[in-house]
Amino acid sequence: MSFPRKTHWTKDVTPELDGKEVILTGWVWDIRDLGNIKFILLRDREGIIQLTVKKGVAPEGVWSLTQSLGREDAIAVKGVVKASKIARAGVEVFPSEIHVVAKSKALPIDIWGSVETDLDTRLKYRSIDLKRPINSLIFRVESEVTRAIRETLYGRGFIEVFTPKIIVTSTEGGAELFTVQYFERAAYLAQSPQLYKEELTASLERVFEIAPAYRAEKHNTNYHLNEFISVDIEEAFANYMDVMDVLEDVIISVYERVNKVFSNELAKYGIEIKIPKKPFRRITYDEALDMLSRRGLKINWGDDVPKNGLELLSEEFNEPFFIIHFPTDLRAFYTKPLDSDPKISESFDLVIGGLEIASGSSRIHIKEQLIEALRKRGLNPENFESHLMVYDYGMPPHAGWGMGLYRLLMVLLKRDNIREVVLYPRDRFRLEP
Amino acid sequence: MSFPRKTHWTKDVTPELDGKEVILTGWVWDIRDLGNIKFILLRDREGIIQLTVKKGVAPEGVWSLTQSLGREDAIAVKGVVKASKIARAGVEVFPSEIHVVAKSKALPIDIWGSVETDLDTRLKYRSIDLKRPINSLIFRVESEVTRAIRETLYGRGFIEVFTPKIIVTSTEGGAELFTVQYFERAAYLAQSPQLYKEELTASLERVFEIAPAYRAEKHNTNYHLNEFISVDIEEAFANYMDVMDVLEDVIISVYERVNKVFSNELAKYGIEIKIPKKPFRRITYDEALDMLSRRGLKINWGDDVPKNGLELLSEEFNEPFFIIHFPTDLRAFYTKPLDSDPKISESFDLVIGGLEIASGSSRIHIKEQLIEALRKRGLNPENFESHLMVYDYGMPPHAGWGMGLYRLLMVLLKRDNIREVVLYPRDRFRLEP
Repeated sequence: MSFPRKTHWTKDVTPELDGKEVILTGWVWDIRDLGNIKFILLRDREGIIQLTVKKGVAPEGVWSLTQSLGREDAIAVKGVVKASKIARAGVEVFPSEIHVVAKSKALPIDIWGSVETDLDTRLKYRSIDLKRPINSLIFRVESEVTRAIRETLYGRGFIEVFTPKIIVTSTEGGAELFTVQYFERAAYLAQSPQLYKEELTASLERVFEIAPAYRAEKHNTNYHLNEFISVDIEEAFANYMDVMDVLEDVIISVYERVNKVFSNELAKYGIEIKIPKKPFRRITYDEALDMLSRRGLKINWGDDVPKNGLELLSEEFNEPFFIIHFPTDLRAFYTKPLDSDPKISESFDLVIGGLEIASGSSRIHIKEQLIEALRKRGLNPENFESHLMVYDYGMPPHAGWGMGLYRLLMVLLKRDNIREVVLYPRDRFRLEP
Repeated sequence: MSFPRKTHWTKDVTPELDGKEVILTGWVWDIRDLGNIKFILLRDREGIIQLTVKKGVAPEGVWSLTQSLGREDAIAVKGVVKASKIARAGVEVFPSEIHVVAKSKALPIDIWGSVETDLDTRLKYRSIDLKRPINSLIFRVESEVTRAIRETLYGRGFIEVFTPKIIVTSTEGGAELFTVQYFERAAYLAQSPQLYKEELTASLERVFEIAPAYRAEKHNTNYHLNEFISVDIEEAFANYMDVMDVLEDVIISVYERVNKVFSNELAKYGIEIKIPKKPFRRITYDEALDMLSRRGLKINWGDDVPKNGLELLSEEFNEPFFIIHFPTDLRAFYTKPLDSDPKISESFDLVIGGLEIASGSSRIHIKEQLIEALRKRGLNPENFESHLMVYDYGMPPHAGWGMGLYRLLMVLLKRDNIREVVLYPRDRFRLEP
């Protein structure tokens, strides 16, 4: 056992393995010393298991080694599983070998939950903070969420694409972008794959991308970051209603998957996954304004629904819902106006738990209309020449949406701060670790 | 049918659907006019199908509309499937409705294969170039490749992570990085997730990431780009041999999946997928130098194996192979030296078709050794303080690799230029589209 590899994750050591030998690897979570018997709790990414070491029963080397074991030492263990009525998860392991592969000093922050550490300090020591079981859970959930998203999209005929994040022009015009020095030229970090994914509908028809996006905005809130993961789809020969249907399927598959895989673990933290039903409630922008007005929040027609408005509506509905038909001028230039009333647009936001999770629309697919929409917003069509060119060659009607992965995780896992669901967040003042 | 949505992709319209009504969407690939009968070839992302329109049989509106149809017009079609011995794929469709959803001008480049267009021009009009069936195939393969990679990694206990691409320090020291203006500070675009993924082994144990990576190198070759997709894994309690085994599984699953899904389509372009067998051949760096010396290529011990050396070796083996045990000084600071001979390292490159596809190693997990390795390379350990801190707290032995997704696609699909397998490539002189 010069280089031990685990045969089982802790969670997979079940009473059915009684009498079997296993190899486990992980960290010493805690040690309980009862004199002639020691209980060592071994933590790995998936859980915690009890190792039982009895003086005179365990090999002498194992017994003496346990005297010097410390919390968070990385260890590899060979041992025999015993079903047990009293131990955690109904099993304990009697080690025949324990190898200390790396000692640990006393941690700079508490990971056991006896002392609360503020978020700033936790983020400063993020790689240590991630040893906390709740964090291991959050990021296992995140991986399962992207997996569910992709599988739902494959099932609906979407393929995954990769578009460049270094670009020459701003997607939406005036938004704030980070500048990159690209050899001799100034370039920008993409705020979204918007124009690329639209162009791709003219060939690949249904595309999605899960990739970083960048906004150089000076926000300092609990739900904005300057680098985030954007889930984007775009579909040819489709309108906003079609892609809202795709979005519903994506959200439901995420909730179902997370509930199926993690409901027991989440319950320990009081997190319950309530699976929404299809179709989600849909209210128009005008209806939202009326409802908010009755609740005492006046919003001028043409202004966006502010965060406290979304919260009031979420309180009222207590389930995911769409706001549809936003004023055309409120949305980006590529948003298609309603044929019947061009002041409003074939657009939608998905709101969950008071947060805008996703945003989408039917897009303009007629070149002259697109040029007109650019001009109306003070943008120069000449800067979009290579994009506009594509519209000359059979550009199909198309629609799509972008969703903030971290926001979805926030509401799914009921975290107050988006930084809790990001491994190494980037905000106005945080650029490391 | 004001807003038609396809019921079938062209490839799914098979003789078994004889007599059934379908809705198809796509583009007019070609029109063959036989006087009283017109054959319209309709292309979508998945293939091409024949629409048959007979004067006096088709509705009058359909017949008259076909008079003005042009190549690459975007259309939606409702029609009845007929099994046919002579038509392509054994079926034709008799349209009852045809809707032109967008007209096309004459294309700026040929997509039919009658005229060769040089790569530069094709990339200039990339969104049009992507309408070529070979390109639609390449990017459907790409999507399937990332899907196979992820499924293999999930199956081996890896979870997907997202690490920041805006960073403060260089991963490997002296490499050339793109500078980003991050508010008041200068920052860089990450050349790899190396240090983050290593830190994550101390909590999440087995992680992978598929994300953009950046190198500000002034290469101008057929196999380098300045922005590329890097597939990265890192595994706790594992060494280089363990992760080579993971890499073999990943490669084999990719070849198997692509062969299963696309072998017929690829055969049309003369592309055959030869599935490699496990374990891949492994030669040491010293053996590689000896073999190349016998072939007349002298390489000084300590220098990297140049491209023409990799080509000679690939010619000899004609299958994927590993070069292992590179000189320690040739590799990045985190590479673990062999205990038995610290001049050489527990490192490997995977070579396929004369190209370095992936590169990995066991990593140093002992803080003092890591500090020493930094110093030996002229790097200041103080610049790595927050990274080194993690090594104080039970840092497990670990190993991993990084793989260039586009290079894998190049060799898989036998493309000579990496730009062929990238939607919108970024190189020394190309920043748009």
